[in-house]
Parts: sequence; C-alpha cells; structure tokens
Amino acid sequence: MFDLTLIGIGTGNPDHLTLQAIKAINQAQVILIPRKGEGKADLAELRLAICRDVLTNPATRIVEFDLPVRDETILDYKARVEDWHDRIAAVWSAAIGDAARVALLVWGDPSLYDSTLRIAARLVPDERVTVVPGVTSIHALTAAHGIALNEIGAPFVVTTGRRLRDEGFPAGVDTAVVMLDGECSFQSIDPAGVTIWWGAYVGMAEQVIVAGPLSEVGARIVSLRAAERARHGWIMDIYLLRRG
Amino acid sequence: MFDLTLIGIGTGNPDHLTLQAIKAINQAQVILIPRKGEGKADLAELRLAICRDVLTNPATRIVEFDLPVRDETILDYKARVEDWHDRIAAVWSAAIGDAARVALLVWGDPSLYDSTLRIAARLVPDERVTVVPGVTSIHALTAAHGIALNEIGAPFVVTTGRRLRDEGFPAGVDTAVVMLDGECSFQSIDPAGVTIWWGAYVGMAEQVIVAGPLSEVGARIVSLRAAERARHGWIMDIYLLRRG
Repeated sequence: MFDLTLIGIGTGNPDHLTLQAIKAINQAQVILIPRKGEGKADLAELRLAICRDVLTNPATRIVEFDLPVRDETILDYKARVEDWHDRIAAVWSAAIGDAARVALLVWGDPSLYDSTLRIAARLVPDERVTVVPGVTSIHALTAAHGIALNEIGAPFVVTTGRRLRDEGFPAGVDTAVVMLDGECSFQSIDPAGVTIWWGAYVGMAEQVIVAGPLSEVGARIVSLRAAERARHGWIMDIYLLRRG
Repeated sequence: MFDLTLIGIGTGNPDHLTLQAIKAINQAQVILIPRKGEGKADLAELRLAICRDVLTNPATRIVEFDLPVRDETILDYKARVEDWHDRIAAVWSAAIGDAARVALLVWGDPSLYDSTLRIAARLVPDERVTVVPGVTSIHALTAAHGIALNEIGAPFVVTTGRRLRDEGFPAGVDTAVVMLDGECSFQSIDPAGVTIWWGAYVGMAEQVIVAGPLSEVGARIVSLRAAERARHGWIMDIYLLRRG
C-alpha cells in the first residue's frame, strides 16, 4: 500500500510548475514517468527534464516505465480502454515496488481529460490519492492570445473534436473550447459569425497561434497544423470558438 | 506607455504560484495591489504576503491602490460596470506613474470570470499585455475532491449561479461547474439524480468541502456556507454538479 500524488505540471513549459508541484516532486520516493508509447519523444524527454530541473531530494528515484499499447483486438471502445487501464495499473504496480510515496506527473491538470485518476483508483483507495492542480492548456491558450475565456457573466462549454463533429456548436453557449481534436473538427461547423483562437504547443517554446474569423483562417490552420505536425512528429492543439 | 503583465496567482494558496508567475513578479517595476474595496480583508493581505514571499528584486515596488466602488446611481448594469472599469483604469494609471513594466496579480487565472483584461484594454494596446496563466478554482475544487472534471470524452459547462437559477441545469451536458454564486443556486434545480462536489476557500488553509447527492447534502452546504461566511467575514465558493 502506498500514497499516490498526481501532480499537474502544466502544458510543457517548465515554468508552469507551481511551488506545490515542486514540493510534491521532492516528497516522493518514486516518480513514475512513461518511457514511450506516447509517440511523442520530445514530450517524454521534456517530462524527465522538468522533473530533473526541480528535483533536489537525493532520495527521490525517477522510475521509467513502458506504457502498454491498446489491444485493438478488443472491438468495444469502453472495454478496450478498461483493459488498457488495467494493464497500465499493473505496469505501475511493478515499477513502484515497495515505495511508500509515489508521484506521477500529469500534463496540464489531472482532472481535465486525463485517465490517471481512473487508473490510480485500481491501485489505491481514494483517501491515499492527493491531487496537485496545474495550469491547463485552456488557460495557456487564452494567455497566448491575451483573451478572456468567457464573455461577462456568460457560460462556456469545454468539449472534444468528436462531439463538435457529431453535434455541432454546443447549444446554449456562445463560447466553446475544443480539446482532443486530431481532425480540425471546426471544419464541420458553419463558420458564419464564428471566431477561432487556435494554438498548438501552447505555453511551450514551439507555440504557434492563429486567430480570426473561422471562415478566413480555418484553412490556414488546417495546413499549418499539418506542417507543424510533420516537423515535430507530433502535435497537441486546442482552440476556442466564439459566435455572435 | 507601459508593458503590463497580468499574473494568475492561483486560489489563495501561496504554493499555487508558478515559476513563471514568480519570474514575472520580479520583472515588474511596479506591482499594483488593491488595498481595499473587496470587503475581504484577509484576501487583500494574502495577496501582499504572496507577493512579498517571492519578491527578490529590490527594484520592484508594490503600489497599493484603493479600488473604486460601483456607482449605484447608474441603473443600467452594463453601463454601471463600464463606468466602474473606467474609474479603475484611471486609478491604475495614477498609481503606475512613469513605470515602464507593471504587473497585476489576479486570483486564479486572468481569463476566467475576471475583468482585469477588459480594464487593461483601456490603458494599454493588446500587444503590450502579457498574461501568465494560473491555477483556477475549478481545478483547486477537483483536486480537493480528487475527482475528474469530465466523464470520459464528455463535455462540461462552466456557468454562473445566476444562469443556473434562470435556466436550470445546462442543456447538452451532464457536468456543470458553477462559479460566482452568492446564493447557493443549486437549490433552484431538481436535485433528483444530481451529485454535488462543493468547496469554499479551495486550495487555502481554510478550505472546506462537501460532496454527495444534492438531495442529501444541499441543505448542509447552505448552512455550512452561512456559518463559514460569518466566521471569516467573506466567502468564495464553487461547485461541480453531475447528473445521471
């Protein structure tokens, strides 16, 4: 049995680390870091570098593990993810050994479109899990553009590329933040009256941003995204859509 | 003319400061801090303390200013807010003097239900404004409860107490985060099947949290909130509602 701390580390800018994150990193006996399987070599390396930069406790060990791949022979999506999470938990368990205080670094914030909490629940009771909140890509995006996320007193939706494709612009709001979108799903909505603020690698040195009326800049974002992805071998992007 | 940096400082836990925020604080010639007018004396003092804790640049001056009050004789809400923002901008301008690099500390993140960007636009062109993203109360809340914000692949809404009262549970989502709610507006919705994760002073030493079925814990939150507010003289709270 061990205590587990999930540490939000921001969006890849080492300076997104909070003092709380730095303390948590140094209180861990073992810090688990995925070695590969993300298909994002610079990201894996970056997580190691962020960790090493702030690690001052000589007793803390960084333990790398190989992230299992999804079993594509399991056809049902939910069952496939459950099986994958089970196997990740087993790999963590082996990597942790007999450490009593374990930490995991999570991009952005552990609560936002991230599975770490769900995997952790397989190994540790809730009361032994601590979460350190982090800067998310939503706020790295709005910071990069220097914009407010919401209009005064107005609500906003955070959603996925898939939902935007399937359901269109969310009902009841004029602002939508779209994450987890590998397909520039903004192409699926009517661009009339919609402004987009897009960013890739937000907060990082590689950051690129584009903003403007969706009808005018949409195609440019699609080609820029493809070029950046080819150049880096991976991409993470996010955007905010506002209508009216 | 000056450069202005809006620095997200998290939710009142000094350890929510990011390394980027600490650097930005130390790069400023003047840091503007509201002296009063928030009706939240410990908060004003806390902002000063956070600033002093990390300030190592002897050339940086902390300049306190009195936040103007809203002119309640202006009956139209938007006009009243515009007038108030105009007067805040004038107060900032006087406090800044001839400083070339100015910083303002913003609770949470400068993009989230905050007027600082809009006031700044009265004084400085966009290209001279820099935003440092911060940890928001949304993630301080989910961290306190150790929960995921979204269900897998599902969207969520961030809204206000007023909207929840006027419009009910937001359409198209099963998860809603409610902010800016002075009236426990969760009382206005049908609690059947709804779970609430509530927190006040999230991330701070004073933090209190309650979670459970809304039908069972709603009344307890109302009375606890009143008691905490009476005890501290002010309260900031936030909650997540999930149905189904």
